Amino acid sequence: MSEHTTFDWSRRQRTGLPEVVFGAHKSSEQIRDVVSEHRERSVPLLITRLTAAHYEDLSDLPLDFDETACTATFLAPAASATPADVAIVTAGTSDLPVAREALVSARFFGLGAVLYPDLGVAGLWRLGEKLDALNECRLIIAVAGMEGALFSVISGLVRAPVIAVPTSVGYGVSTGGTAALHSALASCSPGVVTVNIDNGFGAAAAARKFLS
Amino acid sequence: MSEHTTFDWSRRQRTGLPEVVFGAHKSSEQIRDVVSEHRERSVPLLITRLTAAHYEDLSDLPLDFDETACTATFLAPAASATPADVAIVTAGTSDLPVAREALVSARFFGLGAVLYPDLGVAGLWRLGEKLDALNECRLIIAVAGMEGALFSVISGLVRAPVIAVPTSVGYGVSTGGTAALHSALASCSPGVVTVNIDNGFGAAAAARKFLS
Amino acid sequence: MSEHTTFDWSRRQRTGLPEVVFGAHKSSEQIRDVVSEHRERSVPLLITRLTAAHYEDLSDLPLDFDETACTATFLAPAASATPADVAIVTAGTSDLPVAREALVSARFFGLGAVLYPDLGVAGLWRLGEKLDALNECRLIIAVAGMEGALFSVISGLVRAPVIAVPTSVGYGVSTGGTAALHSALASCSPGVVTVNIDNGFGAAAAARKFLS
Amino acid sequence: MSEHTTFDWSRRQRTGLPEVVFGAHKSSEQIRDVVSEHRERSVPLLITRLTAAHYEDLSDLPLDFDETACTATFLAPAASATPADVAIVTAGTSDLPVAREALVSARFFGLGAVLYPDLGVAGLWRLGEKLDALNECRLIIAVAGMEGALFSVISGLVRAPVIAVPTSVGYGVSTGGTAALHSALASCSPGVVTVNIDNGFGAAAAARKFLS
Amino acid sequence: MSEHTTFDWSRRQRTGLPEVVFGAHKSSEQIRDVVSEHRERSVPLLITRLTAAHYEDLSDLPLDFDETACTATFLAPAASATPADVAIVTAGTSDLPVAREALVSARFFGLGAVLYPDLGVAGLWRLGEKLDALNECRLIIAVAGMEGALFSVISGLVRAPVIAVPTSVGYGVSTGGTAALHSALASCSPGVVTVNIDNGFGAAAAARKFLS
Amino acid sequence: MSEHTTFDWSRRQRTGLPEVVFGAHKSSEQIRDVVSEHRERSVPLLITRLTAAHYEDLSDLPLDFDETACTATFLAPAASATPADVAIVTAGTSDLPVAREALVSARFFGLGAVLYPDLGVAGLWRLGEKLDALNECRLIIAVAGMEGALFSVISGLVRAPVIAVPTSVGYGVSTGGTAALHSALASCSPGVVTVNIDNGFGAAAAARKFLS
Amino acid sequence: MSEHTTFDWSRRQRTGLPEVVFGAHKSSEQIRDVVSEHRERSVPLLITRLTAAHYEDLSDLPLDFDETACTATFLAPAASATPADVAIVTAGTSDLPVAREALVSARFFGLGAVLYPDLGVAGLWRLGEKLDALNECRLIIAVAGMEGALFSVISGLVRAPVIAVPTSVGYGVSTGGTAALHSALASCSPGVVTVNIDNGFGAAAAARKFLS
Amino acid sequence: MSEHTTFDWSRRQRTGLPEVVFGAHKSSEQIRDVVSEHRERSVPLLITRLTAAHYEDLSDLPLDFDETACTATFLAPAASATPADVAIVTAGTSDLPVAREALVSARFFGLGAVLYPDLGVAGLWRLGEKLDALNECRLIIAVAGMEGALFSVISGLVRAPVIAVPTSVGYGVSTGGTAALHSALASCSPGVVTVNIDNGFGAAAAARKFLS
Repeated sequence: MSEHTTFDWSRRQRTGLPEVVFGAHKSSEQIRDVVSEHRERSVPLLITRLTAAHYEDLSDLPLDFDETACTATFLAPAASATPADVAIVTAGTSDLPVAREALVSARFFGLGAVLYPDLGVAGLWRLGEKLDALNECRLIIAVAGMEGALFSVISGLVRAPVIAVPTSVGYGVSTGGTAALHSALASCSPGVVTVNIDNGFGAAAAARKFLS
Repeated sequence: MSEHTTFDWSRRQRTGLPEVVFGAHKSSEQIRDVVSEHRERSVPLLITRLTAAHYEDLSDLPLDFDETACTATFLAPAASATPADVAIVTAGTSDLPVAREALVSARFFGLGAVLYPDLGVAGLWRLGEKLDALNECRLIIAVAGMEGALFSVISGLVRAPVIAVPTSVGYGVSTGGTAALHSALASCSPGVVTVNIDNGFGAAAAARKFLS
Repeated sequence: MSEHTTFDWSRRQRTGLPEVVFGAHKSSEQIRDVVSEHRERSVPLLITRLTAAHYEDLSDLPLDFDETACTATFLAPAASATPADVAIVTAGTSDLPVAREALVSARFFGLGAVLYPDLGVAGLWRLGEKLDALNECRLIIAVAGMEGALFSVISGLVRAPVIAVPTSVGYGVSTGGTAALHSALASCSPGVVTVNIDNGFGAAAAARKFLS
Repeated sequence: MSEHTTFDWSRRQRTGLPEVVFGAHKSSEQIRDVVSEHRERSVPLLITRLTAAHYEDLSDLPLDFDETACTATFLAPAASATPADVAIVTAGTSDLPVAREALVSARFFGLGAVLYPDLGVAGLWRLGEKLDALNECRLIIAVAGMEGALFSVISGLVRAPVIAVPTSVGYGVSTGGTAALHSALASCSPGVVTVNIDNGFGAAAAARKFLS
Repeated sequence: MSEHTTFDWSRRQRTGLPEVVFGAHKSSEQIRDVVSEHRERSVPLLITRLTAAHYEDLSDLPLDFDETACTATFLAPAASATPADVAIVTAGTSDLPVAREALVSARFFGLGAVLYPDLGVAGLWRLGEKLDALNECRLIIAVAGMEGALFSVISGLVRAPVIAVPTSVGYGVSTGGTAALHSALASCSPGVVTVNIDNGFGAAAAARKFLS
Repeated sequence: MSEHTTFDWSRRQRTGLPEVVFGAHKSSEQIRDVVSEHRERSVPLLITRLTAAHYEDLSDLPLDFDETACTATFLAPAASATPADVAIVTAGTSDLPVAREALVSARFFGLGAVLYPDLGVAGLWRLGEKLDALNECRLIIAVAGMEGALFSVISGLVRAPVIAVPTSVGYGVSTGGTAALHSALASCSPGVVTVNIDNGFGAAAAARKFLS
Repeated sequence: MSEHTTFDWSRRQRTGLPEVVFGAHKSSEQIRDVVSEHRERSVPLLITRLTAAHYEDLSDLPLDFDETACTATFLAPAASATPADVAIVTAGTSDLPVAREALVSARFFGLGAVLYPDLGVAGLWRLGEKLDALNECRLIIAVAGMEGALFSVISGLVRAPVIAVPTSVGYGVSTGGTAALHSALASCSPGVVTVNIDNGFGAAAAARKFLS
Repeated sequence: MSEHTTFDWSRRQRTGLPEVVFGAHKSSEQIRDVVSEHRERSVPLLITRLTAAHYEDLSDLPLDFDETACTATFLAPAASATPADVAIVTAGTSDLPVAREALVSARFFGLGAVLYPDLGVAGLWRLGEKLDALNECRLIIAVAGMEGALFSVISGLVRAPVIAVPTSVGYGVSTGGTAALHSALASCSPGVVTVNIDNGFGAAAAARKFLS
């Protein structure tokens, strides 16, 4: 038994989602212990919010790292052959790390997912060109920082439900992502739901539950 | 054509949700005009956030009012005979107005919905007694003010996805509902999504989109 | 000379804008004094932010009241016969009082102005229908509460400069108008400028200076 | 006499708690002076919030360092042989540094203390398994970041009083620990008291006073 | 069974504190129902945060009202004959309503309690005169608004533990009580714990648990 | 001895300022008691923040009321015959209530004081015309809401020290007075000090101490 | 076609402003790709918010870097030979980086622009000396941190419209620039408009639109 | 003439205080230029907020550096032989850098000043021991972080006026110094004035103006 972690092996059965490890505040040793426990049991594992120091310390482990997403996976399912369940849309290029965390997580949870970057509302035609593709997905994860106008606009154009992921991209009043978060929450377009700032993983977890 | 309102009659076809009227800042005359337009077209109508002054001024109209929910409906669909799609759970008695806004809205959108009041985590056995019933629903709307611990707890116990509705019930640091909102967003239980404070309607709209 | 007010009669010559009186915190007696001074000199006058109590106390004065805009004018210029310099666009019906403050002020300053209500982004086609008209104006004042997505969207579609007026319409995280204000400031669409929340008058004053 | 510090040698007699040194903003030289004064008088000493630079500069001193807790002690009492007065519970692995500051401090104050890590409410059974042990303690220190739901849940399940220690573990709206702090303060479960964010030492000091 | 309330009759046995009713957001009818349930079972009842409307509507009920504390009790225990367990100290006269809520609650929970009003630090001699009496109590509840300096000062002078109750008394930066709350949390005097702003009841509940 | 108030009769001797009563949260009965105690001892008294209800309830008492300042005095010193010690300057007409609280208080403390209203920086010449008069005073109290630019400007033009009193006059981002407060604190003009928002009394009290 | 960026080549035609690249969150590789696309098409390019790492990685590219402004340009138009359209005024020396971002951007957009540094209101005569020059410009961009009093003062003295650029220069309550931003928004001098904190580029973009 | 700085050589004559240079955001080159200008004119100079990089770059200049205060002076007046005008008191050892900035600045302005460190209210006797010395000063500068209780306590005990300098010492809710600032502003002890967080220089500047 671990001295620092109490594993919740029954979580998938209870809630439909396996336990996932949040790497940000953990030491490399703690993460190494967690990986060992999963390898012993051959249980698939997703770790999010890894740092450069983690990569260096843990490079010997049999993990699939995604440095843009800051994730590592172990025994992740093979990519879904079915058409995409989830479209992940970003407002700008700078939102890509968060979007990729959502993408890796969605695929870890067994969902088909596709990424459409840089469709912000300053040039609405970019979104217009993708509307047909978006309308074929079952759920949209919209990732945006700054003022987060994308959430309302996309939700007003498609039938699929929209999960907003505000990002901390921006400066001045949008530093930290609160401006984008508030745009998601106060959207004039009904039915938008949101997760915490930069929480691409959380959006994918919700998508998994909504699409079950 | 109205001088103050530009109707979006195609919204249901485009997004799956009809236009709904937010009553809070509107004059009784403006609302009366909106009702007339819908009556002429025989289009169902939901109005939210009505005030005491609205009730008095508009009592002659053929609307179904719900004074706890602060709503009025016109041509709402008959209650669904199917078992409940959505369970609406509240942490306390004081959260009932927001929960009823969700209930009225969900039913207006054609969903089966049932309300379980006062299951806050100070007495966890109350939630425990309802777990079986909750696990039979397709989606849970959790309504809580104060510290909003209910969101994380319920999400860790059931398979159904959870939409959190933080409420402005509370005082001191929970005045206005931000403490509950932040608990929903920062939940340690993955997959919780949230809508704006007191936005029972928004949760029902999202439920409608997720369950289509 | 007044005991409570130091008139700035040279302001128009110095800055291009006459002094305008902010009624909100003033007593009816103070406003009556101000009107007297202007009547004696036959100087045009605009008063903003009048309250119901002001209307009652001052109804005997030769002022043109606009109860939606909460304004009164004295010796305002006749409406401009030229085509519209300024288009005032609102996201929703509830933004009308602020939009009318902008309209009355713009006309007081001698600008041609026209109002397009309820063009919020939840139904983008409404804005699309007005694009040709908007592109013929020299300047757009966009008035929106809630999440304020309108500011970025409209600025990405037209050549005219956009002055954003965030409004305090909304609830939860958009209470007070900060969410809309931050959307204006953090807009991904370059060139949007903003004024204080609910400051329709300020937008008109800026329009006057920019169009001189 | 020190040029930078005015020692409060009578504090233990006056308030029941000896003076403790907050290391965070102090230079290594200042801390070295403080240690000298205590060594001369053979007075036990606890220093909190030490940094990596402090460890390096002060490694020659006869102090017991705890690098997870960021503390150093001098002449700390031997561990209590009595059963545990205080149970320190954490919501997650990342809360351990704060929990260990509480543990080291409680033991420095002569209390028996035991640590139960990673019992967050996303897997409630983990807490359930420890309930009997917790009910045998006289006081519980609950350490949690993110949404801090643990505070309300544990307080609703046990008879012992609960001191909440919100931590700065989290991101987005829980950055800095305010979300967890507000959950402690707005708890629906009566009798929860709280200390400042990350203040494990303060919780132990309060425990010492409450258990005297 | 109630349609709006799920009673937690086992709470006293489980946590040592009976359920108490928060009146603020409840209708008079809901409170009347709650009282009925308690009368039928002859269970003692405390209701807090009553409003003027509640007093008027419920005056026929056999409740002991305290209009300063905004409380009502039913079957409260007779006042303790033992010397005071708890001293309740206020910084100013304006803090009395919160202090009386603490007093009524402490007595309802069976504690001996005494109130010392208006001992704020602007005139420290007032606190000095009461030090002997305060040192004979087992626990101090300190009630203060504005800058809340009382919390640190009193905690530095006595051996008894201090529970701080920040109040919303003040204006400008102390509006709402956050300044006093932050003083309690950031106290330089170790061992101070705090409850939510204006939460006199919560302090008494904590006192009950700490003194068991 | 009072049941609600502990008088600090020695305050004037100890600190140079007599105790002054803050009326805002007190009942008329409590204020009546305070007046009685002062009448019995023939001690001069200043009460601030009186409300309309207080005026009505206490009109029989031998107090000098100032309804703009919301103050009452008893045995106030006769107006100083010396030239003005203190100049009180306001940015706008709406700042007058706070400025008059400062004026009444300064005179109660025996200072010569004069009031210059409506000298805001939108018309700098108004301030320029008063510069000679201001330079003859020993201290300036500057009263401003909105953006509070007056504080920096006046401090850059005169030799006398400036005490800033930010006011809650304004709307949007200046609601509540924080914008003006921050301007006082962050002034680019060195030597400005400030008191709480709307605290005209506090500025006068400080002036009394600085000019002793 | 890029994997991370969706170019909006039609933006200039649609809105009058070409697409500009925000460098802050982008990798050097992403920026290099963007430059390649523009070189291939011989399209002028402006990149803002470059970091030291970008300079090092991209020094081989044919860009004109401005290290104070943190910008790079490609095919920027030759400096305008006409007299200045825009005057850029700063309150202090520390505001220069933001002012230079405005200057580089304005010139990239084809405007004549001139920079007047360090004219803060603590020494008003400095601004007075430049008034004639300022009155000959068509538009003023005022750049100020700390309390931002410059915005109101300059707007009260000249006929040209003023775009405020609050900066994050300052400490304490002006950390991050909110104090200066609120001064711009709450200005007592009508007609001031503002952009986000430190957004020199945005001010230049707005100037381009207003002067077309 | 400088390209980046507009010197205000007349400031001392106009306001009684010479211009002082805020080093924080300036380059070493800019500071070197400023020093040159002062050396050429033999004008005394104070620079505040210097960083380690400044010290290294500017060590060849004939400046008196104080590395605790982060200041440099040129031609500072000899220390006053008169007894102390100003007492500078700190709550803790960690407040020393800010207190020394006040000390260096006060002496630069020609005031006699003395420093009393570490007199926080957790051990009130420490302040008591210094009361006689403090009562002999003309003005007190009180420097405190955390909860800032020192401001109210000291002001209630002495006749001299108190200028509060809140510091950013602390963590959790006192991070950044706002808690201490609000304690200064909301002090229950009348007559306290305050300057910005960490602004030791500003307190000394105000002292200079008040004592002229």
